[in-house]
Amino acid sequence: MPTISVKAQVMPESPIRRLVPYAEEAKRQGKKVYHLNIGQPDIPTPKVALDAIKNLNDKVLAYSHSAGNPSYRKKLSEYYHTVDIDVTPDEMIITTGGSEAIIFAFMATMNPGDEVIIPEPFYANYNGFAVTTGVTIKPITSNIDEDFGLPSIENFEKLITEKTKGIVICNPNNPTGYLYSEDELRQLEKLVKKYNLYLFSDEVYREFCYDGHEHFSVMNLKDIQDNVIMMDSVSKRYSMCGIRVGCMVSKNKEIMAAALKFGQARLCPPYLGQVAAEAAVDTPKAYFDEVYKEYIQRRDYMVKRLNQMEGVKSPLPKGAFYTTVELPVDDTDKFAQWLLEDFDYQGQTVMLAPASGFYSTPGLGKKEVRIAYVLNTNDLEKAMDSLQEALKVYPGKTL
Amino acid sequence: MPTISVKAQVMPESPIRRLVPYAEEAKRQGKKVYHLNIGQPDIPTPKVALDAIKNLNDKVLAYSHSAGNPSYRKKLSEYYHTVDIDVTPDEMIITTGGSEAIIFAFMATMNPGDEVIIPEPFYANYNGFAVTTGVTIKPITSNIDEDFGLPSIENFEKLITEKTKGIVICNPNNPTGYLYSEDELRQLEKLVKKYNLYLFSDEVYREFCYDGHEHFSVMNLKDIQDNVIMMDSVSKRYSMCGIRVGCMVSKNKEIMAAALKFGQARLCPPYLGQVAAEAAVDTPKAYFDEVYKEYIQRRDYMVKRLNQMEGVKSPLPKGAFYTTVELPVDDTDKFAQWLLEDFDYQGQTVMLAPASGFYSTPGLGKKEVRIAYVLNTNDLEKAMDSLQEALKVYPGKTL
Repeated sequence: MPTISVKAQVMPESPIRRLVPYAEEAKRQGKKVYHLNIGQPDIPTPKVALDAIKNLNDKVLAYSHSAGNPSYRKKLSEYYHTVDIDVTPDEMIITTGGSEAIIFAFMATMNPGDEVIIPEPFYANYNGFAVTTGVTIKPITSNIDEDFGLPSIENFEKLITEKTKGIVICNPNNPTGYLYSEDELRQLEKLVKKYNLYLFSDEVYREFCYDGHEHFSVMNLKDIQDNVIMMDSVSKRYSMCGIRVGCMVSKNKEIMAAALKFGQARLCPPYLGQVAAEAAVDTPKAYFDEVYKEYIQRRDYMVKRLNQMEGVKSPLPKGAFYTTVELPVDDTDKFAQWLLEDFDYQGQTVMLAPASGFYSTPGLGKKEVRIAYVLNTNDLEKAMDSLQEALKVYPGKTL
Repeated sequence: MPTISVKAQVMPESPIRRLVPYAEEAKRQGKKVYHLNIGQPDIPTPKVALDAIKNLNDKVLAYSHSAGNPSYRKKLSEYYHTVDIDVTPDEMIITTGGSEAIIFAFMATMNPGDEVIIPEPFYANYNGFAVTTGVTIKPITSNIDEDFGLPSIENFEKLITEKTKGIVICNPNNPTGYLYSEDELRQLEKLVKKYNLYLFSDEVYREFCYDGHEHFSVMNLKDIQDNVIMMDSVSKRYSMCGIRVGCMVSKNKEIMAAALKFGQARLCPPYLGQVAAEAAVDTPKAYFDEVYKEYIQRRDYMVKRLNQMEGVKSPLPKGAFYTTVELPVDDTDKFAQWLLEDFDYQGQTVMLAPASGFYSTPGLGKKEVRIAYVLNTNDLEKAMDSLQEALKVYPGKTL
């Protein structure tokens, strides 16, 4: 039998996947498992998007343009203007989810062996996209005691080699919920300019900013606009992760022309998803107000409960719907498995995402988990009750 | 400004793209352009698939399974059984179009620098997927005088080096319309076994076989079943190219596990497309009878007209909806441009796909074009009239 590829061999699997069989077994045993481990919101998709699908009038579901339907790109550029991002339909390529936007961005700009610096903990699938494109990730550690804010520019500079081609940020951040300030982004702007790097910014959680904090997009770093590539997606904005519609945006015409060649090879992004996404741009403001209220309520409740537990430390996230939390346990990989395998509180338990999968530096994150507040407050209450009880009886507790 | 990647620089653009501005200009001048250059059928998508979309009942368009919705995989395995392909839902990964199936297959099995042998002319986007994955394509030339049948096994063996990892076929073939016989596939089976290669088979035109010829799938080469990877798509089968739903199929568990890791990184294939594709499996036989009748009529009419033109040579394709044709001209790239730029017959002209883009060996295909019979017979008649007149007056004609 011929062998599989080296890339397939080193392609990481997230530590959440390892836990899936334990979660399934727990459910088979009749336990109620609260999923705090995933980024699939329970928020309804806007009616205007669902209606567009139901009212579909096409006779042939044909290929769309490789860069995305012109009508959708026009509408999307209108959306961007409402959030102070000035881009034209020609400065974007509609992609199959944010995932493909990242792959196209990496593929168009970097050669195998080139390096990108990413603040850790970071979205675990960046590892997969790095393997796919042959790029090496150099992690720079952010710290829970600084709410996972931007590491110092000095520390970035220490990591820059002649192979360094770019910096990747996720803003607001998955898995920490941190929202980078304009000041932090201005620091990155100077660094990027000094070393002539790319700045890749994953802004799929743009809509989820709390407490009056405003999102500042890298697209507004005018001094480095040819170095900036934004990756985006409608998955979280309109709670329609399954339609696989994202986009890659840049003012740099050479990069966009390069990325489009990869787009042409795969013909086009999903047509039906584009229909839904185009309609979703007209989602009424009341929808977002409702979503905002819901998430704020969940976040406030959850962070309060977490910080009330002895030895637990959670920052107050300013964005997205995650928080990365320190727990008084020996190893969160073991703890998360134990929660599913050996624990229940009144027939209930929780599934957590061990943070080791979000760190690239070996050994880091062993006491941290990512918690997604994608459950309604009733369920969140039960989930917090279970976690609280679990921390009292877990054999590997460190308190 | 930082530079784009080497892959982006060498990523090919198809010669059809080069012609698009000329086609647009011709239309601006009021010419009617018949598109014989593209694989977008005009056949309606089955009603049962469109209805499934219109009747969508979901409240949240959530992520599906990374390998595809279990209900769709089950249904798809039932479809495969109806065409004598015995695969279980676990032996398939639903992909974002056939394109992603090819990328996953290459990525899971081959390292940068590895080689695959592909009979040329071949589907031009294989070049793009090879660049993406770092694989080198070694072309083996098939010949119009043999209807583009399988090149001799001796010629395959001459190309095998220690870097050769596989053979790629497209069956029925795009761009030639050739349908490989069971005998030809048995020859490949022996070769693949002898050198322990992968056999990648793109079978997206399976449903389009004519004159009583039956499709024989590589999945039925039991002797090499661990070496076989089939790539498939619903795009052509149900005329829904835009939904981007394909699949990768193999009995080799190690390959499927490897490919799934790439699938997990990109989260899932498009959900709405999967809804349409699942429903489409129940498309009534009458639909296919109608489609079959339509294509046979188009093919017969078109091939007859082509071969009546002086110096024009077209095989009678046994499958797909393309034929690769020899024309009595100096260079089909020039001819195709001239047709759009400098010619019209009663205000009409045609757009052709120069075959040079389907050959990897430099200089080949200069007298050939691919013609897709995706127009109704009325339009085909006018297109053939235009082509016939064009060949009489083209300055670079060789007759």
